[in-house]
Amino acid sequence: MLVRFNYNGGVLYGSLVGEKIISSSDVYDLTEVELLSPCQPTKIVCIGLNYVEHASELKMQLPEEPIIFIKPPSAAIGPGAEILLPSSSKQVDYEGELAVVISKRSKNISARFATDYILGYTCFNDVTARDLQKKDGQWTRAKSFDTFAPLGPWITDINSSEADIKTRVNGELKQDSNTSDLIFSVPVLVEFISQIMTLEAGDVIATGTPPGVGSLQKGDIVEIEIEGIGILKNLVSS
Amino acid sequence: MLVRFNYNGGVLYGSLVGEKIISSSDVYDLTEVELLSPCQPTKIVCIGLNYVEHASELKMQLPEEPIIFIKPPSAAIGPGAEILLPSSSKQVDYEGELAVVISKRSKNISARFATDYILGYTCFNDVTARDLQKKDGQWTRAKSFDTFAPLGPWITDINSSEADIKTRVNGELKQDSNTSDLIFSVPVLVEFISQIMTLEAGDVIATGTPPGVGSLQKGDIVEIEIEGIGILKNLVSS
Repeated sequence: MLVRFNYNGGVLYGSLVGEKIISSSDVYDLTEVELLSPCQPTKIVCIGLNYVEHASELKMQLPEEPIIFIKPPSAAIGPGAEILLPSSSKQVDYEGELAVVISKRSKNISARFATDYILGYTCFNDVTARDLQKKDGQWTRAKSFDTFAPLGPWITDINSSEADIKTRVNGELKQDSNTSDLIFSVPVLVEFISQIMTLEAGDVIATGTPPGVGSLQKGDIVEIEIEGIGILKNLVSS
Repeated sequence: MLVRFNYNGGVLYGSLVGEKIISSSDVYDLTEVELLSPCQPTKIVCIGLNYVEHASELKMQLPEEPIIFIKPPSAAIGPGAEILLPSSSKQVDYEGELAVVISKRSKNISARFATDYILGYTCFNDVTARDLQKKDGQWTRAKSFDTFAPLGPWITDINSSEADIKTRVNGELKQDSNTSDLIFSVPVLVEFISQIMTLEAGDVIATGTPPGVGSLQKGDIVEIEIEGIGILKNLVSS
């Protein structure tokens, strides 16, 4: 488990083993550090409508090719950080997603070699101001507010083609799916996106959300849990 | 005039005075360096449909609020660099634009204080795969290919509310407008965008393109000229 964390004001990377974090300089207790977004992407490339049932609940047609949009680095927050509701939106939704973290510069990567360019996986919440998404037509504003890209709690390797993914709000199960329902698999996404743009180490591909999206209110606790990774937990604030 | 340049494999920043570049360490002739994109944005925030006449030529309604999209840092190239036509598109268009470069971290900046957060202005070409833009509905893929964000040749201060902007392809005038025709002014854009996301030093706001967009072919020379700045010139290749 790769973690990025704040200890006494310094930002470090380390490896989580049990409750201990081993960094190049020292060993820390998980309880004495603040976990941060486990990577620092130069871009977060997101996929719209990548689960059949989610497209259906939004009454949108299935895409022939992945539909992409970009969240800026300024939107990223770590586990435990607060999602801030902007005053310009009346409906902010969670969207639990599997995130792929890129390991090195990637351009024109074939799907069959994609795993050579993947550092690992983490949980992602594609927080979305649904009313602004509908108003604008273009999705960027609705998805680019500061704090709208929670990532974490750490990066690890999993079988990305068959992992349970669940979202809970205040403990109540809202999304319950499996990445085997992805329309475009992780290797296909790496190929598709790296044909468009050069991906850098730490960049994130968010693979789309399953059905069950819904709204967040101030005070809610939202958790994204992915099999083999763990739980990304954030408080909603304003 | 602030420039960023490559000299013998090292990347430096400097100030252009006449034909000389003054950096912290030395003075260089403009002819002996390679000018690069004058800033390294963490994000390029672009505005759709910000000139009345361009919205009209695309048969799109005028927006009540700015419509934003993001180009990734990987798309940025400098003056003189080649725009590469991707094989997945049959129609790649130029879009000449005035670009605003941010000077320091900016969040919730009022329009009346916007100039305090602006380092200066440069020319921008919002290169767009028009066929993919229409196909996807979302604009991100069409605008995010590597080399699709030429910036330059340098950053300087101008009167952003009244500057001639022209695009030429192989010397032929294609776009000929003035920033006084902007629907949303630069200060309004800084306020609008900084309410959504934190802008960082070097980030770019591209203010939209005037009427006259059209296609680029391999071998074309495309120039964006803005009054008070200069000419951003790029070769189209494949």
